[in-house]
Order: sequence, then C-alpha cells, then structure tokens
Amino acid sequence: MTDRRHFLHTAAAASAGLILTPHVHGMTLPKANRKSSSKRMSLTFFPYELKMRHVFTVASYSRSTTPDIQVELSYDGLTGYGEACMPPYLARELGTVDSVMQFLARVATRIGDFSDPFQMEEILGEIDRMDDGNAAGKAAVDIALHDLVGKLMGQPWYRIWGLNPAKAPDTTFTIGIDTPEVVREKTRECAARFNILKVKVGLDSDRDMIQAIRSVTTLPLAVDANQGWKDRQQAIDMIHWLHEQGVVMVEQPMPKTQLDDIAWLTERSPVPIFADESVQRLSDIARLQGAFSGINIKLMKCTGMREAWKMVQATRALGMKVMLGCMTETSCGISAAAQLSPAVDFADLDGNLLIANDRFRGVEVVKGRLTLPGGAGIGVTPVSVARRE
Amino acid sequence: MTDRRHFLHTAAAASAGLILTPHVHGMTLPKANRKSSSKRMSLTFFPYELKMRHVFTVASYSRSTTPDIQVELSYDGLTGYGEACMPPYLARELGTVDSVMQFLARVATRIGDFSDPFQMEEILGEIDRMDDGNAAGKAAVDIALHDLVGKLMGQPWYRIWGLNPAKAPDTTFTIGIDTPEVVREKTRECAARFNILKVKVGLDSDRDMIQAIRSVTTLPLAVDANQGWKDRQQAIDMIHWLHEQGVVMVEQPMPKTQLDDIAWLTERSPVPIFADESVQRLSDIARLQGAFSGINIKLMKCTGMREAWKMVQATRALGMKVMLGCMTETSCGISAAAQLSPAVDFADLDGNLLIANDRFRGVEVVKGRLTLPGGAGIGVTPVSVARRE
Repeated sequence: MTDRRHFLHTAAAASAGLILTPHVHGMTLPKANRKSSSKRMSLTFFPYELKMRHVFTVASYSRSTTPDIQVELSYDGLTGYGEACMPPYLARELGTVDSVMQFLARVATRIGDFSDPFQMEEILGEIDRMDDGNAAGKAAVDIALHDLVGKLMGQPWYRIWGLNPAKAPDTTFTIGIDTPEVVREKTRECAARFNILKVKVGLDSDRDMIQAIRSVTTLPLAVDANQGWKDRQQAIDMIHWLHEQGVVMVEQPMPKTQLDDIAWLTERSPVPIFADESVQRLSDIARLQGAFSGINIKLMKCTGMREAWKMVQATRALGMKVMLGCMTETSCGISAAAQLSPAVDFADLDGNLLIANDRFRGVEVVKGRLTLPGGAGIGVTPVSVARRE
Repeated sequence: MTDRRHFLHTAAAASAGLILTPHVHGMTLPKANRKSSSKRMSLTFFPYELKMRHVFTVASYSRSTTPDIQVELSYDGLTGYGEACMPPYLARELGTVDSVMQFLARVATRIGDFSDPFQMEEILGEIDRMDDGNAAGKAAVDIALHDLVGKLMGQPWYRIWGLNPAKAPDTTFTIGIDTPEVVREKTRECAARFNILKVKVGLDSDRDMIQAIRSVTTLPLAVDANQGWKDRQQAIDMIHWLHEQGVVMVEQPMPKTQLDDIAWLTERSPVPIFADESVQRLSDIARLQGAFSGINIKLMKCTGMREAWKMVQATRALGMKVMLGCMTETSCGISAAAQLSPAVDFADLDGNLLIANDRFRGVEVVKGRLTLPGGAGIGVTPVSVARRE
C-alpha cells in the first residue's frame, strides 16, 4: 500500500519534469532549488555576538552584549537552525564561546556517523554524554536537529507535539531596574504592548520599583528574586505585599541551597513559587516536588527541546506548574522554546526583543501573546531570506 | 518559501493529471483512491469478540474469549485504526462492551467538532473529561487518532517520537499454568521462538512450574505475582529463590493496598519489582517512587499512546524503570504499544499471539524480538487488505 502511494507520488512528480526526493514529502523541493543534497548530516557554526538594544541590569551586574553561537545542520538539501547563548554568569553550566566552539567541533566530527536524523533519542543522548557541561552547545545541536526533523516531516513542532497554537500564552516582558521616572516611562511603553510585566526584585529598591510600575498600570506582574532574599520571614512578608500589588507569581525567592526555607515559603505563599536557579535539567525535578509550585524551563540550561518536552511531562506528573524562560537569544532560540508554549502556565520569552541584530524572523508577540510561526520545524526564516521575499 | 514549495508540489501533481490533497504530503494519495474525503473526523466502531487460541488461566480465573471493540476514525480519505479490549476482571477501570459502546457513541457525536486532528492534547483531554471510567474506550480513540495523525505526517510513531526501531526489546511470552508435563512441552515450543519467558506465580504450584520450565530451558524468566503474596517475608524468600532460578524481574508481588510492604521488598530484592495493579495512569506514578523499581504501562488502562508516552518520561525522571504490557488484543493495540517499545526496559506484548482471529498485520516477533512495522501511524494493515496484496 505504502509502496503504491509512493509510486504514484513519485510518478506524478516525475511526469511533470521534476525530481522529488521521496522521503521528505512534507517539504519536498525540486532538487535544483536545494543547496546540496548530501544524505549525511553536517554541522557548521560561528560566533555571533548579540548586541543589546539597551544596557541590561539585574541585581548583580550590567551588560550590553551577549556571547552567542549560531549553528546550521545540513542534510539532504535542508538546513536546521540552532543557537547557543552563553551569558557569562552561567558559564559553568552553559559553557563559554570558547568551550562551546570546541564542543561543537567535536560534535561536527561525529554527527555524520548518524544515518537517520529521526533517531533523536540516540543522537542527542550520545551528544549529551560527550561532555559534562556546555549545555548551551548541546541545546544548539538539539534545536538545529528539531528544526531539521520538523522540516523532514513538513510540520512545526507544536503540531508534532499535538498542541494548539491558539493556547500559546502571553509572554512577560521585563522592566529593567532604574529610577522611578525611567521605570514609569518604560512601563507606559510596555503596558501598551504586553499583558503581563516582569520585574527583577531582590534589591533595596524593590518597593519603589513596584510602586513606580503600579502608578501607571494595573497589569499583572511576575517577579524574579534571583535568590535575593536570605531570610524566609522577610521573604514571605514581601511576597504577601507583592501579592497585594497584583503580583501573580514569584521566581526563585531564596538561594537554591535553602530548599527547606523555600518549601516553607511555598506552603504559605498566596502565589505560585517557581524554581529557576534550583533547576537545570530533567534529573533535578524529582527533588523539587513539595518545595516549589513549579519550575522554569530554559532550553540553554536543559540542553534543548527534547529534554524540555520531557521536563514538561515529568513536572506535570508531579502536579507542578511549568513556565518557559530564556536567555538573550535571537528569534531562533526563542521560536524553538515557543513551540512548547501552549503546554505551559507562564512564558517569559522576551529575549529576542532585547537585541538589535536578530538573524531570524519567527515567533511574534501580537497584543502581548506569543504567536507561533506556521513554518515547519521551529518555523524561523533567516532575515536575509525574509528581506528578499 | 513554504508557499512556493507548496505551489511546485501541487503543480507537479496537477500537471500529471492527479489531484493531490495538499496538506497530507506524507501519505498523499490521488483522490480517486480514497474512500471519502471529508475534512471532518468521523468515528465508527463495532464489537469484535476475540477468540483465544487456547484457554487462558491465571491465579483467579480461566477464559476462552475476550470482549473487544474495533474503532475506525476517518478523515480526509484516511483511516486511523483503534481498539478497545475489556477483560471482564478489569471492567471497573476499562469498561465493558456495553459501557464502552455507549461512551464511543458519545465521542462519535463530538469528534467532528474538532477541526484539526493534530490538536491531540485538547482532543484527548476533552474526551478524557467526558467520563471517569471506560479507559479502554479512551484508548481506542487515542490509538485511532495517533494512527490517523501519523498517516497525515507520513511517519510511524516511533520515528515521530525520535526512537530507534533497532532498540525494540525482546517480548516475553507467557507460559500458562498447567501440569509439569504440559508446561515442559509448551516451554520447549516457546524457547525456540522467544528469548525471555513469563510465568504467572502466586499459586501453590509456583515452584513446580518454575522447575518444570527450568528442566527444559535456561532462558531468563519474568514473573507476575498478580498481588498473590500476602506476607512480605514469604515474598522476599520466594523472590530470592526465583532469582537463583534465573528470574530477572517480578511484577506486583503483593496487593496494591500493601504499598509499605512492597517498598520493603523493593529495597531488599535482587531483581527489579514492577507495579502493575498499583498503577493505572500518569497521576499514579508520583506516589510509587521508592516503593517500586519500575512500572508496567498498558494502553488500555492508561487511556492510550499519548498518556503512555508521558508516563515513560515521568517515570524515567523519577529514576524508575519502564515496561510495556497489554491485554489480549489484536495486532492493532499491540502495534500501537510497540511504537513505544524502543524506550522501555521490558516488553510483554504477546497479546496478539494468543488470538485466532486477528484483524491486522503489524508488529512481528522475529527471533524473539519485537520488529516494528515501517508503515505510517501505528503501522497496521487490515488482514483483508493484506490478503489481497
């Protein structure tokens, strides 16, 4: 039966004077339109420093660029795009530009040995075992492989995962720490474009920040304390005050070493408490049950889309909530994460909005909501191609 | 870009005098070859009593037929096959022929309202919420929907899930309880076809059964106690003896109400202890952590392939093992479960080998190992069609 269908499909194409590559029906292109047609995966990559639109300040530092590496995985004339982003403060888990370049060079010498891109469990498992760190490098390969396999199937990943794109949530957008005047001005701008705002807290200026925002908008707020509170009584008092101010969730209120204190907080908090620094990968989730209401999943930390999808299932099975976070990334990494977004409670996917040199078009924020691209794979188009169209 | 590809694809087909349905590239068929082409899902179903090749005896009962319902989900000229199997002793969770027929009738009136079969999370979530029980009816719809969506993507589910079919495990085959002479005879036959045998224990005749098998083969054995041992000291003594006899795993040694005793056993057992009666669905897994080494996932109990896949991820995240089990089913249900099999530690998928009136060809056992069919969806072909080919 399959053979007969296949024959008819090919016969139809052949009689029209085109040679189609049979197994990639979904995105079938005439050979002539393809860059190359090797049935062997090959990986290329190059450093790409992200330029921030504005200087970015959190509790512990400021910066105006972010180290990043862009990845392309070629196979049978198709290209899968991926990205590794390595903010310096996460170098231990994510890697640096140097370490990830070296890691990707090792992957590039191995990737051609895998004959079938669809065997993602084995390919990504073997790549994971090649190194203890460099999670961002692993994520870059994972994203590129998902983009490629999605294109081979002719479907975006949200469809392959059985999700409804109409259920993609609003994304939060972070209001940077600044003087009350500047904060009010930024809030006014952002309140017109987003339905939920995020504030980094954990500094002495927290109450001033929140009050400055509240003076110009009634939008719900998410806060990220980045382990900023050290005393649990101080933390619960602050959370109650924040709740009164319309805060709907709190990320990582206390240091990850104080898990018992966080569990104490979660038990008493009127809003859900999410793990961020406390969680990196799938294997971290089980011990967080009871201590947090939910977890923040970031592709760069967890090694990519496949592990992220598993983390969503495992976290749900433990009765916990899920949010998606990101680094400063191009629309490549953000669109990859956004494929999962119809399955989560909160999305904090504003990283591509913060850079001045995005290389891709993909997910967009329309009236504050993530709007998933319809294209196969992760659904991104290089800006250079998009400009020509 | 996508539009251009799409145009070329359609143009090629059109110029060859065939009208192709654009969005189902993977399994594109000329319209004329399709039964119908409604872009609305429709569900049909009918009771189909399974005839057992041999009378089946476990600790508590014997039977020679198994109640079953066959399901077909039509959409755009494609058909997804599904199956509900309802052994009487599991009627409370799985349903009966009557209750599942009524449930499917309710699903049939609703299924056409879902415009996109790919939105499996919402479709299956809503069907699940329609009823507290009738898990087998839910599984039938889930399997048919997976078969349909896999066909729309032109891929078998093991590929969509990123698994390597070469990693599909051996399946166990159950040696029925009988006199030592008959057991020796059956074991001789089965040892030539399988690499691991399964024995139901929990009767006074256990040691005689094992010794009869051991007198003719050295193959590894799996045992299922079906909650048969009531005393934990008796159970651990038996497990040590079974381990010495080459038993490599034990299913549900004690009643599910005795979870603390099972945890005590698991801590001391030289072989992994799997939950069977103790687990039905995803939500049961978290409380089994620490009490069992692993869980047995059965599509008819857990409502189907989507929940089963989530259960695999959640169970792995808790550091536990996974096995796949089944009821007496046609090759439809067994091939659906087999799609998951490269991701599990043990497979007990012999249900289709026990019936005389299988309606499908699908997964096969070759030299004891599950050999996954290459076809899209769950990969089954109706026997009536297979005969004509």
